[in-house]
Amino acid sequence: MVTRPRAYLAGPDVFLEHVTAIAACKKRLCAAHGMEGVFPFDEAIAERRRSPAAIARAIGAANEALIRECDLVIANCSPFRGVSMDAGTAYEIGFARALGKPVFGYTNVVADYRHRAERYRRLGDPLNADAAKSAIEDFGLAENLMIATATVARDLVRIRVKPGRELVDQRGFVRCLALAAKAMASSSRRRRGG
Amino acid sequence: MVTRPRAYLAGPDVFLEHVTAIAACKKRLCAAHGMEGVFPFDEAIAERRRSPAAIARAIGAANEALIRECDLVIANCSPFRGVSMDAGTAYEIGFARALGKPVFGYTNVVADYRHRAERYRRLGDPLNADAAKSAIEDFGLAENLMIATATVARDLVRIRVKPGRELVDQRGFVRCLALAAKAMASSSRRRRGG
Repeated sequence: MVTRPRAYLAGPDVFLEHVTAIAACKKRLCAAHGMEGVFPFDEAIAERRRSPAAIARAIGAANEALIRECDLVIANCSPFRGVSMDAGTAYEIGFARALGKPVFGYTNVVADYRHRAERYRRLGDPLNADAAKSAIEDFGLAENLMIATATVARDLVRIRVKPGRELVDQRGFVRCLALAAKAMASSSRRRRGG
Repeated sequence: MVTRPRAYLAGPDVFLEHVTAIAACKKRLCAAHGMEGVFPFDEAIAERRRSPAAIARAIGAANEALIRECDLVIANCSPFRGVSMDAGTAYEIGFARALGKPVFGYTNVVADYRHRAERYRRLGDPLNADAAKSAIEDFGLAENLMIATATVARDLVRIRVKPGRELVDQRGFVRCLALAAKAMASSSRRRRGG
């Protein structure tokens, strides 16, 4: 029996309104591609009566344990509350890479990081979180180079979706999943000498 | 002879205008605390004539190698071009944690993550990078829980600085460095049975 690769489904999806439906959808799509989707679901932990700090630590440790158990990471790297992606997802990508696990990342926004950062500056630094003369990365990548170059494709898979649907549309995930399934099948064949 | 702990100095400082002066200042401060500060300096790599993508990959690999060589990470987690910290720095913290290295993080903004995300929403989602009914973490932490709970202090060291100076003021770094030096000296004594 060939065990299915387990994919940790990183992303800010956990914060979205219809997280349960999104998790179920992503897992079904993984199964259709011969993989098991593992979703960082926090509710079971959060329900126990503990301090907020203790709950946060338990969720962090649980997610790290899940990443260790998985064979790969598929990460939603669409911009989240800023020019860049969700910081927790960036953390998880770095965590997985240090363990040698392949990471596949996607974004539902096609613009380069540079264009998004320049737009932020044109908006007048609305969050007061920039420095006027700071350099803006210009490598033609979709995200900070540490993230983009850490992925198997050496940049994020980019999909253009309907404006306002960037965080809920699953087309970027589907495209990235197909890429991941193909890469995992290929590496599995190599391991079996096929 | 006791070798000095090597601290990887993560943060968006590499993008700031006076990066050379900042790097020198941080290294001097580390030396004054009995540590060697290792700065992710990219210029030597970027000077060679290669494609932007190849330069980005070389910088990413070089920074990962530096993290592997270091004993700890001190990370500037002040908000950068959004509600959250620099995504590349979040990646590096995750990378270091998977390798078991202690991480010390600071921010020059005292507000909880929740307050910053709520302010972003009040501004009308200026970057179109939020989902209207998405949940906002409320653990009383300074950053996404994966980041905050991954640090030795289980949250970022927070310092209030003069508005507009959040990315250049070194007071957060100094406070965090003192914490790191104390913790490293204490763990070194334990290792030597002192």
